[in-house]
Amino acid sequence: MLSLTSDFGLRDPYVAEIKAVILGICPTATIVDITHEVDKFNVHAGAFMLASAAPYFPNGTVHIAVVDPGVGTARRPIVVETERGFFVGPDNGLLLLAAEAQGIKQIRLIGNRKLMQPQVSDTFHGRDVFAPAAAHLANDVKIEQFGAEITDPEKPLFTKVKRGADSVAGEVLHLDGFGNIITNIRLTDVDGFGEGMLQIAFAENPPVQMKLSRTYADAEPGEALALVGSHGFIEVALNLGSAAKKFSAKVGDRIVLKKSLNF
Amino acid sequence: MLSLTSDFGLRDPYVAEIKAVILGICPTATIVDITHEVDKFNVHAGAFMLASAAPYFPNGTVHIAVVDPGVGTARRPIVVETERGFFVGPDNGLLLLAAEAQGIKQIRLIGNRKLMQPQVSDTFHGRDVFAPAAAHLANDVKIEQFGAEITDPEKPLFTKVKRGADSVAGEVLHLDGFGNIITNIRLTDVDGFGEGMLQIAFAENPPVQMKLSRTYADAEPGEALALVGSHGFIEVALNLGSAAKKFSAKVGDRIVLKKSLNF
Amino acid sequence: MLSLTSDFGLRDPYVAEIKAVILGICPTATIVDITHEVDKFNVHAGAFMLASAAPYFPNGTVHIAVVDPGVGTARRPIVVETERGFFVGPDNGLLLLAAEAQGIKQIRLIGNRKLMQPQVSDTFHGRDVFAPAAAHLANDVKIEQFGAEITDPEKPLFTKVKRGADSVAGEVLHLDGFGNIITNIRLTDVDGFGEGMLQIAFAENPPVQMKLSRTYADAEPGEALALVGSHGFIEVALNLGSAAKKFSAKVGDRIVLKKSLNF
Repeated sequence: MLSLTSDFGLRDPYVAEIKAVILGICPTATIVDITHEVDKFNVHAGAFMLASAAPYFPNGTVHIAVVDPGVGTARRPIVVETERGFFVGPDNGLLLLAAEAQGIKQIRLIGNRKLMQPQVSDTFHGRDVFAPAAAHLANDVKIEQFGAEITDPEKPLFTKVKRGADSVAGEVLHLDGFGNIITNIRLTDVDGFGEGMLQIAFAENPPVQMKLSRTYADAEPGEALALVGSHGFIEVALNLGSAAKKFSAKVGDRIVLKKSLNF
Repeated sequence: MLSLTSDFGLRDPYVAEIKAVILGICPTATIVDITHEVDKFNVHAGAFMLASAAPYFPNGTVHIAVVDPGVGTARRPIVVETERGFFVGPDNGLLLLAAEAQGIKQIRLIGNRKLMQPQVSDTFHGRDVFAPAAAHLANDVKIEQFGAEITDPEKPLFTKVKRGADSVAGEVLHLDGFGNIITNIRLTDVDGFGEGMLQIAFAENPPVQMKLSRTYADAEPGEALALVGSHGFIEVALNLGSAAKKFSAKVGDRIVLKKSLNF
Repeated sequence: MLSLTSDFGLRDPYVAEIKAVILGICPTATIVDITHEVDKFNVHAGAFMLASAAPYFPNGTVHIAVVDPGVGTARRPIVVETERGFFVGPDNGLLLLAAEAQGIKQIRLIGNRKLMQPQVSDTFHGRDVFAPAAAHLANDVKIEQFGAEITDPEKPLFTKVKRGADSVAGEVLHLDGFGNIITNIRLTDVDGFGEGMLQIAFAENPPVQMKLSRTYADAEPGEALALVGSHGFIEVALNLGSAAKKFSAKVGDRIVLKKSLNF
């Protein structure tokens, strides 16, 4: 099984070219699209998408991810082996968030021309380098055959959550299609804040008090609530509405969670 | 074979998570997306999409559909067995239009925790309840193992077509990507109206006379015509243009078909 | 293996109906979407998309393409056999650009009703004629069984590139999701213009001098450059930006490439 994550969109034939190359090398591959709608060149967002979905894939899955503003430059093409599978893509931080969560065993350069397309373009390594590498891995080619081991991969620069005595500062990671505001703050980060209520402030706005709930329907229609999304992060949602619109939230906005005044 | 229908969109990783769970349980599954672009929370539209596509799938297909505004509430997760396959999703009317057309054999609750994901979130039953249920059905797990039989499923509340002496009132079910206006009126509903011409009124607008035609090309480019779409409903189309734009039609608009004045 | 190219979009259930029909006839088929976002009725754009992606598919692939403004008229449904595979779709030029590049062996009408859906609608030949034809080809049904051979297929009307002493005139074929402007001019068309620099004029605008580069990153961020895209055509790109926006380019715009003044 292989997964694909990219910023190529579905309008152009690029994703199909990647799949065609994979299936030419590994005809029995099952390919699952994670998303191709990562904001163009946004490595940060791509890393989040991949890390959200990867835990649900079976052991042995080969994940290809291509958000690659540096294609054609000196940025390195890499293969990462983890305890649960493989990640293939550019060495720009895109793979590491998901790969580290699985336990990294080794990282190697993709340097072996025999494991690439016969013609390698300078603009589309997704098709010419990463797709064949992933297909060969799915065919049980050993990772050692791809190239030298490296130990200095680029790391994704996510804001670290900052914990104070009664507040936690993080950022908006993603706004999903339902308008849910997904933060980089986990439930363990607000440990001891009491149960059931939180104050949440977006960017420079005054804090809003809301319930920390189990499910969307714990709020009235149109009412905001905080909950732990299926990816493990705290998110702010509106029951049957868009929290992103209500709070004018943008990706990267600073967000502060405080103990509720009522506790 | 499995099909997927949802309002999750293709930008977020949610659909991939569902597929990953299915393929983890049933690695040989072939999964076909019906659509993931149902308007958010619009059970009505989702029911139409599923009912449009389901007839073309082979016997034995397991259809998963998730348009689920009540996730996390008391709304029941169900499996429906029909003469031709299975439907899995929330008990909110979404499955019934398609399932009834195939002949329902039995409906059961999904209550058996062994047939769910090990961790069941309160916000994403598509991944944690419906996907594993469908994958187990594809693996020939018996429907009796899921839970108790129920006989009071929620029904989708479509406007019934009202037939008068020389008119039929219905509603706009769907506007497709070509701008075709799909109604809930069937050819049999206008039986005896004569052949070849109809008067059609949208919402409160005066009626427009148009040909009931066999194919788009029976009209001049830009001219409107009525025809029976490939799903069996009467639709209003513009040859090489958008009828939805021309008539400012919206989903849910009342539509009245009358005998043509010329008959 | 089968590929699908269409203007159906992914919001409506039409693509799913095509896949369901294919998998009903050929349950082991692997289906790859090239794109379903071809501009509605734009045969020209569909032909380009199909011709871009088809070279990457393995031998024996059956390509289905449906951009079909003439559905229901006298336009003929055809199957094209090439040295590398098959193309199935309407005889309106859509298939020929891709098929000719593979070497056409024969073209036949699809006339045999036994190789169509039991019910053939007048509005959706993608599902009722082309999908079953392709699935039967994938099942090794002989092309001779579909219908009579034809030798007068419709050809796509692309502007031919016009070469002068020190200039080449072509047109904008496609604007991709990254804002790259893809022309119908190949590197061989500018042979002898010198290396490294070109003058490029869009529509009636004065020419702009830019580097003919190997990769996007050869330009500064926001700077324009010309390069040979992965499909073999010269394209104009902006490093980390949209050339289409910068030059207000539209599909079909005339484009002239000249020798650089500096050579």
